[in-house]
Amino acid sequence: MTSQTYKFQGWQGLDPSSVDGKMVWGEFEPKRWEETDVDIKVTHCGMCGTDCHHLRSGWFPAPYPIVVGHEIVGEVVRVGSRAVGGHKVGDRVGVGCLSDCCVAIQKDPCERCSAGQENYCRKATWTYLTPHYNGDKSYGGYATYHRTSGRFAYKIPESIESKHAATLMCAGATMYSPLKQNGCGPGKRIGIIGLGGLGHYGVLLAKAMGADKVIAVSRRTSKKDEALALGADDYLATEDDSEWHKKYRGALDLVIATVASSKAPMGSYMKLLKFRGTLVQVGSPDDGNFSIPTNPMQGNQLKFTGSSYASPQEVRELLQLVADKNIKPWVEEISMKNANQALLDLEAGKPRYRYCLVNEDIKKASL
Amino acid sequence: MTSQTYKFQGWQGLDPSSVDGKMVWGEFEPKRWEETDVDIKVTHCGMCGTDCHHLRSGWFPAPYPIVVGHEIVGEVVRVGSRAVGGHKVGDRVGVGCLSDCCVAIQKDPCERCSAGQENYCRKATWTYLTPHYNGDKSYGGYATYHRTSGRFAYKIPESIESKHAATLMCAGATMYSPLKQNGCGPGKRIGIIGLGGLGHYGVLLAKAMGADKVIAVSRRTSKKDEALALGADDYLATEDDSEWHKKYRGALDLVIATVASSKAPMGSYMKLLKFRGTLVQVGSPDDGNFSIPTNPMQGNQLKFTGSSYASPQEVRELLQLVADKNIKPWVEEISMKNANQALLDLEAGKPRYRYCLVNEDIKKASL
Repeated sequence: MTSQTYKFQGWQGLDPSSVDGKMVWGEFEPKRWEETDVDIKVTHCGMCGTDCHHLRSGWFPAPYPIVVGHEIVGEVVRVGSRAVGGHKVGDRVGVGCLSDCCVAIQKDPCERCSAGQENYCRKATWTYLTPHYNGDKSYGGYATYHRTSGRFAYKIPESIESKHAATLMCAGATMYSPLKQNGCGPGKRIGIIGLGGLGHYGVLLAKAMGADKVIAVSRRTSKKDEALALGADDYLATEDDSEWHKKYRGALDLVIATVASSKAPMGSYMKLLKFRGTLVQVGSPDDGNFSIPTNPMQGNQLKFTGSSYASPQEVRELLQLVADKNIKPWVEEISMKNANQALLDLEAGKPRYRYCLVNEDIKKASL
Repeated sequence: MTSQTYKFQGWQGLDPSSVDGKMVWGEFEPKRWEETDVDIKVTHCGMCGTDCHHLRSGWFPAPYPIVVGHEIVGEVVRVGSRAVGGHKVGDRVGVGCLSDCCVAIQKDPCERCSAGQENYCRKATWTYLTPHYNGDKSYGGYATYHRTSGRFAYKIPESIESKHAATLMCAGATMYSPLKQNGCGPGKRIGIIGLGGLGHYGVLLAKAMGADKVIAVSRRTSKKDEALALGADDYLATEDDSEWHKKYRGALDLVIATVASSKAPMGSYMKLLKFRGTLVQVGSPDDGNFSIPTNPMQGNQLKFTGSSYASPQEVRELLQLVADKNIKPWVEEISMKNANQALLDLEAGKPRYRYCLVNEDIKKASL
């Protein structure tokens, strides 16, 4: 099979209004083929809040036309002769946010890549966000096919359903990395702020990693039953309960905040932390900086830090953890043809807890 | 000698205008004597920016009348029968910010005190800031005599001059603790933001602790020569050089920020840090929260944290370090009677780099 026998088509954002359900379906020219690439017939693509940020040029001007989507699962249909990863035609693989790092273009990897943190490589390229190293545009997974470096395509364990695997590629990985790096496990009490696609993974993963207690924090009481069903030990509603920050004041070792608004009450979140506790911000607002009070930071030696995606090694560990512990994320399948409506619903906070677009008219990969 | 033979007199702030050089000299009633106390004839008291914050009720309403000053050195003139610390009449001791912790009032010390971090004890009492455990008011060192718990009075090594020792009690200790806790030493590159009383100690101590490079950062070029004379390897002027953050972009392991203004360009300070570098805020603004950009925090996994004073063990280590390395802080002696003018000069940023009030009419302790 060669690149000529299938067409790259996808939902294209042409301007910031595309986020209002105005993406346009059409053909696009993928990056020029390199022998380090794989082509993937997309069967599933999760929908991430980041897709909305970029469609509306929220963080910076998007290079329209863009095709978003970085939670891709599908079937390998073409493998370059120098593709890293041991891929074979017919394999089911996932592709996340990261599409390449400096090891592809320089003899000695940078310090960050050497340390196994390719996701912090200063030369990293990002699925549908930055151009490929050959200068060609990168397109995401709201599409029929995806072409990318084989290095960052991950083989999916058999027991994981494709719709689940897709949402692990960004949402799951983005939560796993800070949980792991900040010692989530037995003996630890964890807070997860924001119960959306990322937050729901935060609860699932923190429990699976053996945390003593996982407290879910969201604005409204309406998600309480769902949070407990996901495995949370308790639930706090920041807007419906003015006393929300009292019950676990100074009680948590680690808080991971998935909210992407600079209006988030960071000072109140910090009150949940123990002496020397850590707040990791994973949501990226497009409406300004965070306002951080000094007093609790100093009086309790709290740490405020951020985390961005996950390393390839962490993605592999996550896939294994999900397979081993039989973790079942809550994912709603949506037909690829309904992507525009799904975008509106995503912006309205309707997913419980992640949408995954499905190419029903393409023969699905196994599962 | 009993408490009846000497009078407690000091500079009293009666309202927020006292910070404008309007403190009033007069007698005050010290805390009721307890057998865990020592009385100290104050020979020296350093002047700290915190004194100004409290005189003007900057962080919260001050319990006027107040006597400020928590960089106290003097001669022990009375020792309670149960005073901790092995003090003898005639000893030269220093007293800093911390005046007591929970071990004085409960059987089992709290977790923080057990860990040797009495400065983070939730029940800690602070020199001239919080009442003593017996309910009596606490008064600081802009005074003739000081009464406090013997536990937090430190014997001063002979080789350290009293004016130097005084300024170690807050400024030096506040810088030593975060430098030590964040690994300052050989192989590390350190930035010190703000070249005032704290910042000048930051430079002196980071060099003495063996850091590879110490970069001083202040607003104007005017302090450059002094910074280099203090031992800084380089100097950046944030207001006089618009390119200031380029030379050491991504180069520093640790930045300690002593500025006490919420308007400080934290985002630019963060650009100095390496991957996984740490910014420790030690200055406490009274004008609002810090504005922290998420992007560099996430893309470089930076840490933003705070530090508050130092533990007794750290103060003792610092005294030993200063004695061993013969560190000479830059301290200007001011007669106690000129405290009001000194306050105005302190607010105007005139000290190079710390003022120390001296009770010239009181017989000095040795040195």
